Amino acid sequence: MPTTDRPLAISAPEPRTLELIFTPEALAHLRATYEIVEADPENIAGLGDDILGRARYIIGQPPLSHETLDRMPQLRCILNVESNLMNNMPYDVLFQRGIHVVTTGQVFAEPVAEIGLGFALSLARGIVDADVAFREGNELWGGDGNAGARQLSGSDIGIVGFGDLGKALNRVLSGFRAKIKVYDPWMPRSILADFGVQPASLDDVLSNSDFVFVVASVTSENKGFLGAEAFAGMRKGAAFILLSRADVVDFDALMAAVASGHIVAASDVYPEEPLGKDHPVRRLKGFIRSAHRAGALDSAFKKMGDMVIEDMDLMDRGLPPMRCKRAERETVSRMRSKPVTKN
Amino acid sequence: MPTTDRPLAISAPEPRTLELIFTPEALAHLRATYEIVEADPENIAGLGDDILGRARYIIGQPPLSHETLDRMPQLRCILNVESNLMNNMPYDVLFQRGIHVVTTGQVFAEPVAEIGLGFALSLARGIVDADVAFREGNELWGGDGNAGARQLSGSDIGIVGFGDLGKALNRVLSGFRAKIKVYDPWMPRSILADFGVQPASLDDVLSNSDFVFVVASVTSENKGFLGAEAFAGMRKGAAFILLSRADVVDFDALMAAVASGHIVAASDVYPEEPLGKDHPVRRLKGFIRSAHRAGALDSAFKKMGDMVIEDMDLMDRGLPPMRCKRAERETVSRMRSKPVTKN
Amino acid sequence: MPTTDRPLAISAPEPRTLELIFTPEALAHLRATYEIVEADPENIAGLGDDILGRARYIIGQPPLSHETLDRMPQLRCILNVESNLMNNMPYDVLFQRGIHVVTTGQVFAEPVAEIGLGFALSLARGIVDADVAFREGNELWGGDGNAGARQLSGSDIGIVGFGDLGKALNRVLSGFRAKIKVYDPWMPRSILADFGVQPASLDDVLSNSDFVFVVASVTSENKGFLGAEAFAGMRKGAAFILLSRADVVDFDALMAAVASGHIVAASDVYPEEPLGKDHPVRRLKGFIRSAHRAGALDSAFKKMGDMVIEDMDLMDRGLPPMRCKRAERETVSRMRSKPVTKN
Amino acid sequence: MPTTDRPLAISAPEPRTLELIFTPEALAHLRATYEIVEADPENIAGLGDDILGRARYIIGQPPLSHETLDRMPQLRCILNVESNLMNNMPYDVLFQRGIHVVTTGQVFAEPVAEIGLGFALSLARGIVDADVAFREGNELWGGDGNAGARQLSGSDIGIVGFGDLGKALNRVLSGFRAKIKVYDPWMPRSILADFGVQPASLDDVLSNSDFVFVVASVTSENKGFLGAEAFAGMRKGAAFILLSRADVVDFDALMAAVASGHIVAASDVYPEEPLGKDHPVRRLKGFIRSAHRAGALDSAFKKMGDMVIEDMDLMDRGLPPMRCKRAERETVSRMRSKPVTKN
Repeated sequence: MPTTDRPLAISAPEPRTLELIFTPEALAHLRATYEIVEADPENIAGLGDDILGRARYIIGQPPLSHETLDRMPQLRCILNVESNLMNNMPYDVLFQRGIHVVTTGQVFAEPVAEIGLGFALSLARGIVDADVAFREGNELWGGDGNAGARQLSGSDIGIVGFGDLGKALNRVLSGFRAKIKVYDPWMPRSILADFGVQPASLDDVLSNSDFVFVVASVTSENKGFLGAEAFAGMRKGAAFILLSRADVVDFDALMAAVASGHIVAASDVYPEEPLGKDHPVRRLKGFIRSAHRAGALDSAFKKMGDMVIEDMDLMDRGLPPMRCKRAERETVSRMRSKPVTKN
Repeated sequence: MPTTDRPLAISAPEPRTLELIFTPEALAHLRATYEIVEADPENIAGLGDDILGRARYIIGQPPLSHETLDRMPQLRCILNVESNLMNNMPYDVLFQRGIHVVTTGQVFAEPVAEIGLGFALSLARGIVDADVAFREGNELWGGDGNAGARQLSGSDIGIVGFGDLGKALNRVLSGFRAKIKVYDPWMPRSILADFGVQPASLDDVLSNSDFVFVVASVTSENKGFLGAEAFAGMRKGAAFILLSRADVVDFDALMAAVASGHIVAASDVYPEEPLGKDHPVRRLKGFIRSAHRAGALDSAFKKMGDMVIEDMDLMDRGLPPMRCKRAERETVSRMRSKPVTKN
Repeated sequence: MPTTDRPLAISAPEPRTLELIFTPEALAHLRATYEIVEADPENIAGLGDDILGRARYIIGQPPLSHETLDRMPQLRCILNVESNLMNNMPYDVLFQRGIHVVTTGQVFAEPVAEIGLGFALSLARGIVDADVAFREGNELWGGDGNAGARQLSGSDIGIVGFGDLGKALNRVLSGFRAKIKVYDPWMPRSILADFGVQPASLDDVLSNSDFVFVVASVTSENKGFLGAEAFAGMRKGAAFILLSRADVVDFDALMAAVASGHIVAASDVYPEEPLGKDHPVRRLKGFIRSAHRAGALDSAFKKMGDMVIEDMDLMDRGLPPMRCKRAERETVSRMRSKPVTKN
Repeated sequence: MPTTDRPLAISAPEPRTLELIFTPEALAHLRATYEIVEADPENIAGLGDDILGRARYIIGQPPLSHETLDRMPQLRCILNVESNLMNNMPYDVLFQRGIHVVTTGQVFAEPVAEIGLGFALSLARGIVDADVAFREGNELWGGDGNAGARQLSGSDIGIVGFGDLGKALNRVLSGFRAKIKVYDPWMPRSILADFGVQPASLDDVLSNSDFVFVVASVTSENKGFLGAEAFAGMRKGAAFILLSRADVVDFDALMAAVASGHIVAASDVYPEEPLGKDHPVRRLKGFIRSAHRAGALDSAFKKMGDMVIEDMDLMDRGLPPMRCKRAERETVSRMRSKPVTKN
């Protein structure tokens, strides 16, 4: 196929790779449909005007200057496959020109929701400790092994944050006949009601739930908003499951609340990652630990590629992207998760 | 309320106790509504004819002779709260006289289904091993920690047996968009279809599933029906989750299949219970162990009492019991689980 | 296949016919699997002992005497395909011998529920009157045509009776996010809760619903239990939809309540059927009429045959029937619908 | 509250009125929260700079010139409550400045979906004709009245268009265990799959469905795309239900297909509205007519106001609107429904 017949896409997906985010079939389709120019993300400006001038898409989130963008008159979309919106391009220019910036982070929602439910069931039923005891010959049989055990079915569940992840959690919880309350100040009440959950205040969610799932993004405004007081207000024996970013909690206060026996907890994220070998959370009873691995499934990465292809197909046809999530003028500068350094 | 105004129920729930299966409120209601005669289950015949002659219900599953039953002309129902139908009473006489024999075992369906899903998610995501590694400072971060990890959402799931427990599993799986196949030779295909699952052969269920849940009751016919060949036919890396009774599998073959790395597994039941301290399953990698504690939640026991009261109320009004499960002439002698010796 | 190898079934399905209730494929299967003896339902006793002595099943609901049953030692089940349990056989003998009597009436539940929802939507949106007006050139456009129109979504719905039909209604209503209350004195509250509906008193259901569906069977006890007072207690403008039998309502009171403008209504059943040409319901505004045709769909009849075959297969294998509904000792004499005279 | 403390919103909702789209409580809230300036939609430019300079919102869809917009530096959003995007303002300027243009048309999705299901059930069960026959004394009883009757449950259903209305239809159909195929060329396949429907070609949807719902918006490209060939390809006896705009079909061809007996149909929309008194559709058998009244429920209009308030609240807090639907640069000029002239 001659070069000029295919729309041009610049590929700079680091830290991802094309092989990580596309299945072999999807990658073959991508290469057959587009002229893919693989570029050094640190030097997009170094590409010639013949490339920049024809580029319709950028797959990746490389640093871009105003000047470089000026050399790209055909650009329709930057497909950020890292999922954080870094402060490395002039978003105002992009919005003004109507160049979409989209992210693919929703691929992680389903696997994170699944492991979150797994944490909840493990905490509710002591799955980890019971297996460890069994390995060691100390297991308790029958009802003796169920002190503190409880059901999710019919329980009160709280969700803090109702983006893609909160919605995925609500879906995997749908067979449990639970009463689900949600706190999300960015979400109109009527949308929450449409999803069958009950809009609630943060205090209500914390103090009236048997299981609390925290899936709120970190913003410039909510750093550490869950501290000692929040944990003290929770029901005795309730489970706190942290799935988004450690920065939304006061981690020391969380450990103290678990150590005191007031609540149990699970977390996929930590104040520093990786964590020191002697960090006290390693020995904390009533806590399930996971090393920031909730979302990073190969099957999730491969969905990124599918989303990218579906949205590029829409835009090729003059339609807006629908599959990925768009950056918004109002919030682009508020989202401040640390970028991942590894997949 | 004078004694003679209330229907008489003989209480002989051992190994349960009334306090185990009734909440304080329910027990108060029971005592206010019925004349409760607490009896030695081994000596129902020792009760006087003034008691036996007025007894409308037996709460429990004590041994009963034909002669004793002849002394109970008002008997409407035996409410078996142990959940196995032991060979300790003349069922043919009971069926002929239209005396219902009902069991309350369905209270365990929901907690067993929940822990079963917890096992599945733990196997799929390595929750137990990851936490143990983290305790020991050997955790792998991000994608490195997800070798072999997979999602339940969209997976192929097989269920062997579709009684109360199979139905409860199907319900807690309802948010996962999974394709669920069921093997149950006692269940018409159209009923399975009504539940939205696909009727399938045992071989199909075993060989085409990512997760296989075994919830079949032991009968006189299916002892050890899942052996080496069955496990060999499973998908590489699939998860086998045993929730009913160990007698339906060849346990050594199951351990061998896991030890070989072909499948992973979890089990709540064992050939002997409790299990010897040196049993090899204790050290088996790829296996999650639970000491017959899947169903024995206090909340489940308390539902037994609620069921008993609801069905006694129906029968008081001349209606048939609907809440508990009735013993059937055709199958009463086929159900051969070992009775529990502890709650 | 030689005659003697196949179990024998006596066929006497009048007023049904085998052709009505079996698809050609199902009928071929039936004839290949069983020796079918087609008999005059009024003279089962006239069959020879070679037939009666071998008969395992009766498909139909013919009159049977104690003596005739004594000549049928192999009989396992009477499969009543008319769906009412007439007083034409000694049920006590059947129950004592453990001969099942099953009915297939649940095939009508789904089509009746569907037309019931169709009536509700037609009443809520004036579908019939708007089409009639349009035919006559008197239609009102846009919002002008929507006086009194309302949505089901989010409304309060009441269901009186929660047998197969009530459950089918609950299912077809599942996409409407409605709050559903159910009155059924024969049904334990916890079963209603398992179906996601709220148990309620009859008065609560009537007075707090926007739509009331009546699907209660007629028993010897509830004749005419919905009268003038019941209708007066309904919400102004609410819809009353009668789907079971006319005998549960005071039909004149129902018409009066509609004529007064207090409620709207639809009915599939009438005090006499067929109804006189000058019956006032024919001209009643705010009323949708259907001539006892809610369930009698060919597709429903064909499911009867499927159910019969599935249950005969279970019983051939020594299992109890599960697909059809069993007559119960306690209630067989209470169910007193008039038998249908036509299909 | 002094005027200058409240954000200013210009109200020009014609043909709606504030009283139509706000409940009294919502209107009180609106007036308490905002300084509402009611303006002549034909003369927004006539407002003084003190008004225009402070206006944060416009509730309505008045003609706006580039010059007028230049006088409105604080404008954040135009809340179009008519729901069509007319060619009466410079959308390119609005997009460039980041001024949102949102529509509230999704309030109609639920009522339209409900009446659409009502049409389908009425066609499937002959509800309208059976009632008319009953009025006239010509009703057919029982199965005789069910020639051609069929169930939705388990049927093949096709939906053309999967915007808000298609999604609402899918939801109200969720209790019917139907197999739902969707044709929507603007919608990625994976989104359709997430909704549990099967992406399909137009031809597949038309030729393999028992019920076809057309809910596609009119665009500059799909005018009359459903013609004689489309109808000829439908299953014999299938139902065609038109709910969006008449311009997507060849209406004469639709009438011919119904007149021939090949299909049955229902429509809420017509080539001209109102329709001539002698239009042949008025007498067409097998057709259910509704005079463009599917969506125009008072309860729907009132939801518009709720949506407007929820999105203004988000924007007041510096967040993007989420409840209403945003106009898109790519498609704003393609959407070409005729504006309504009455509510």
